[in-house]
Amino acid sequence: MRVDLNCDMGESFGLYQLGQDEEMMKYISSANIACGFHAGDPHVMRRTVELAKANGVGIGAHPGFPDLMGFGRRYMKCTPEEIRDYVMYQTGALREFAAWTKTELQHCKPHGALFMMAMEDEQIARAILEGLAALSEKMIVFALNGSAVEEVGRQMGMPIAREVYADREHTANGSIVLTRRGPSITDKEGMARRVVRMVTEGRVLTPDGEDAEIKADTICIHGDTPGAIDLIKEIRAAFEQAGIEVTPVRDLLFH
Amino acid sequence: MRVDLNCDMGESFGLYQLGQDEEMMKYISSANIACGFHAGDPHVMRRTVELAKANGVGIGAHPGFPDLMGFGRRYMKCTPEEIRDYVMYQTGALREFAAWTKTELQHCKPHGALFMMAMEDEQIARAILEGLAALSEKMIVFALNGSAVEEVGRQMGMPIAREVYADREHTANGSIVLTRRGPSITDKEGMARRVVRMVTEGRVLTPDGEDAEIKADTICIHGDTPGAIDLIKEIRAAFEQAGIEVTPVRDLLFH
Amino acid sequence: MRVDLNCDMGESFGLYQLGQDEEMMKYISSANIACGFHAGDPHVMRRTVELAKANGVGIGAHPGFPDLMGFGRRYMKCTPEEIRDYVMYQTGALREFAAWTKTELQHCKPHGALFMMAMEDEQIARAILEGLAALSEKMIVFALNGSAVEEVGRQMGMPIAREVYADREHTANGSIVLTRRGPSITDKEGMARRVVRMVTEGRVLTPDGEDAEIKADTICIHGDTPGAIDLIKEIRAAFEQAGIEVTPVRDLLFH
Amino acid sequence: MRVDLNCDMGESFGLYQLGQDEEMMKYISSANIACGFHAGDPHVMRRTVELAKANGVGIGAHPGFPDLMGFGRRYMKCTPEEIRDYVMYQTGALREFAAWTKTELQHCKPHGALFMMAMEDEQIARAILEGLAALSEKMIVFALNGSAVEEVGRQMGMPIAREVYADREHTANGSIVLTRRGPSITDKEGMARRVVRMVTEGRVLTPDGEDAEIKADTICIHGDTPGAIDLIKEIRAAFEQAGIEVTPVRDLLFH
Repeated sequence: MRVDLNCDMGESFGLYQLGQDEEMMKYISSANIACGFHAGDPHVMRRTVELAKANGVGIGAHPGFPDLMGFGRRYMKCTPEEIRDYVMYQTGALREFAAWTKTELQHCKPHGALFMMAMEDEQIARAILEGLAALSEKMIVFALNGSAVEEVGRQMGMPIAREVYADREHTANGSIVLTRRGPSITDKEGMARRVVRMVTEGRVLTPDGEDAEIKADTICIHGDTPGAIDLIKEIRAAFEQAGIEVTPVRDLLFH
Repeated sequence: MRVDLNCDMGESFGLYQLGQDEEMMKYISSANIACGFHAGDPHVMRRTVELAKANGVGIGAHPGFPDLMGFGRRYMKCTPEEIRDYVMYQTGALREFAAWTKTELQHCKPHGALFMMAMEDEQIARAILEGLAALSEKMIVFALNGSAVEEVGRQMGMPIAREVYADREHTANGSIVLTRRGPSITDKEGMARRVVRMVTEGRVLTPDGEDAEIKADTICIHGDTPGAIDLIKEIRAAFEQAGIEVTPVRDLLFH
Repeated sequence: MRVDLNCDMGESFGLYQLGQDEEMMKYISSANIACGFHAGDPHVMRRTVELAKANGVGIGAHPGFPDLMGFGRRYMKCTPEEIRDYVMYQTGALREFAAWTKTELQHCKPHGALFMMAMEDEQIARAILEGLAALSEKMIVFALNGSAVEEVGRQMGMPIAREVYADREHTANGSIVLTRRGPSITDKEGMARRVVRMVTEGRVLTPDGEDAEIKADTICIHGDTPGAIDLIKEIRAAFEQAGIEVTPVRDLLFH
Repeated sequence: MRVDLNCDMGESFGLYQLGQDEEMMKYISSANIACGFHAGDPHVMRRTVELAKANGVGIGAHPGFPDLMGFGRRYMKCTPEEIRDYVMYQTGALREFAAWTKTELQHCKPHGALFMMAMEDEQIARAILEGLAALSEKMIVFALNGSAVEEVGRQMGMPIAREVYADREHTANGSIVLTRRGPSITDKEGMARRVVRMVTEGRVLTPDGEDAEIKADTICIHGDTPGAIDLIKEIRAAFEQAGIEVTPVRDLLFH
């Protein structure tokens, strides 16, 4: 049994440090790298790509809205075409640094408000996917279970990785709640057990007490969550015990 | 006898319009397309790439300093490494839109203060060229006669196009004077004659009255110069009379 | 009978020119000056304030969302507190240039999406008004008839100027339709007649054919509308004929 | 004997945290608050002003170049007029938040590369001082000993506070060396002794071993220096022992 572990990376900017990329990079298999709009800058991007490569971690674009002040977490009423152009711009910039390190982009996962809008709105999902599909047939896109991205991606024949969250609650329809401040992680063991169950049984308990079906190709852990390093170690240990192998998502989808 | 005609393009931003891209695109053979730092935005970039492709014009990156307010014309004391990362970021973003239209980047020409710094400073020239060379062996870089970019580019074995200016004065050492406001073009015929002489004889009269040697692989005309359309028509007419063919710079360098 | 004529001003940025400020400034009595977020930059702001002062035009802040690429026309889901801080920041910057010219800020009119959100949402209206009220008791705020800003402003005892649009349609509830592209003005005389009627009779014909009540303390004309200069001349001529005097809004409200 | 202790403050941005403002604010008497160009944003500015006020700390503007990516530390070749407008814009924005808390701006200290350019270049110094003087006669400007700002400020009759650095070396002509990364502080006691001597004797040992004359109206401690809290505590203890009172700079200059 295999699964991908992903984390947002490269969200520093200029002098500003965010996250614990060097430490987290040891435990994940895919990195969602910010592309300079909601976070990240050209140097941070290059260094993060180099760090991912050095750790054998799959490199993914993590494009966001042009809103550094709001960290890309605020809905902006852009047109689907504007959004497609924003995603292509950012993905292209990151692709250049991937090529600089002789690697290819493995995946794309939109960030924050852009992620939620893409999951909810079919037109936006389609615009993003068309932009990505034009550049590569093997570009994997991350999508919530039952989201617009999953549906449109399947229609278009694109490789879609269903994503679940180690540190967020899921509703019965596969959605999650994104807050400005993530939850403080207290029960690491409980979270690790929950993640193992999503991978092995394909089920998760919702806040309403429902036992919902859920598919987990890749599991997201937020690097800026306090205690993130401890949580991911706990998860890796639980995976080892359960016989779950952690591997970049391309190895799951293209074999 | 053949030469390339280039012009800065895609320098609009959001609601702001600059230049007369649609009209100019009919007369040039290579477009230097702004990449979102000193000018341009993702939509403008995509539309400009599409317009260039539709006119059979070679597509080039026109990266600048992150200084929209100063239009990239102000020297910023960045390190060579910062500059290389800025150039790669911007070039990658444009490359994505080129791929979107099923074309490849033909060339790169830094903008404004970044252009002048690259021409004057060997370390900056080398940093930029290393970034570009890592992505493609066929990326042509524009350089003033005798500049650091020309010299380092030759050392590195990169394809370099020597550039002259239709609407600027040249000094004996090949340099030009960049001002915040370009010159008002009054004597179009004189300028056309001067350009023809640079192409056919490889010589130009400097402001000091010297008759200097100069090589012209590509000729720049600024699109925001008042009267630019009339000037380029005049040049095209003069070229026709002199038997000079206008062609994208890759056809000059790779044959 | 008196009324104020206002126009958005100072929306150029760096090299980018927008609007015909010098010409429009001759015909208006109040200028809404962009403050560097959705448009405008420090130099443009200073020069526009100086131009307004030289023409005896009332100086107003025109704050917008931090979205230069979208010209502040895209809804951004910011909190009321974020919005208050954005408005105070921008208003303060403009106030400094007003003081530089020995004048005071007369009014504030939010821009684009921020304007519409303030008109629709009571919490946002209140946040903005609290920020403005803290600095000056005489700060006049522009508001659509029946809007949240009008209502909250009245509750707070702030001077509110009810605004109508020369070049936009009004609905029966006082709202207008803001589009990315304004309407092309064709029937100048009809528009001038409509404006005169709003001032003298306090009534306007809605797109639904209803004859709605409307109060016009100040009339907005968009400077980027093609034909804006001709329209405002037509309106001024119609005003003269109808015996309507054009005067800065502070003269209407503080007598 | 009295002296002012100042520190750069409010340099966080959006989600990005920088410095230890709450802790440092307890030990300083004047805060240089970033104004949104090189660092800081409207919310950070307001909260920092409120924090300074709550601690009885003098509020100062800390304007920088429009270069968030470079934290305002990179020289930008702007004209004196551009710089004046940038400083006025930022100072005005901060003044608004000061007024919001019913306080006034005490001082202005340019940041990073703008600071160094103002100290070195008389035209830039004059442009900045003219902008500040136009708004308030009591605006105190910080200046290195023997700098252009000190000289021009004296000519203009403006209140100038001579500034020295607790955590930087001084040359015989009063200048300091600004590096991208500050020095690691190891010998806190030695630094405290050095500061006490600058205040009490008006002398400092330069890196060349010269014992130079120096005037210290205000002493800067960088909040982002590792160990800054310990250093400032050490300095406060040394001051107490030496009978030096710490007080906002306006109390030194206007009594």
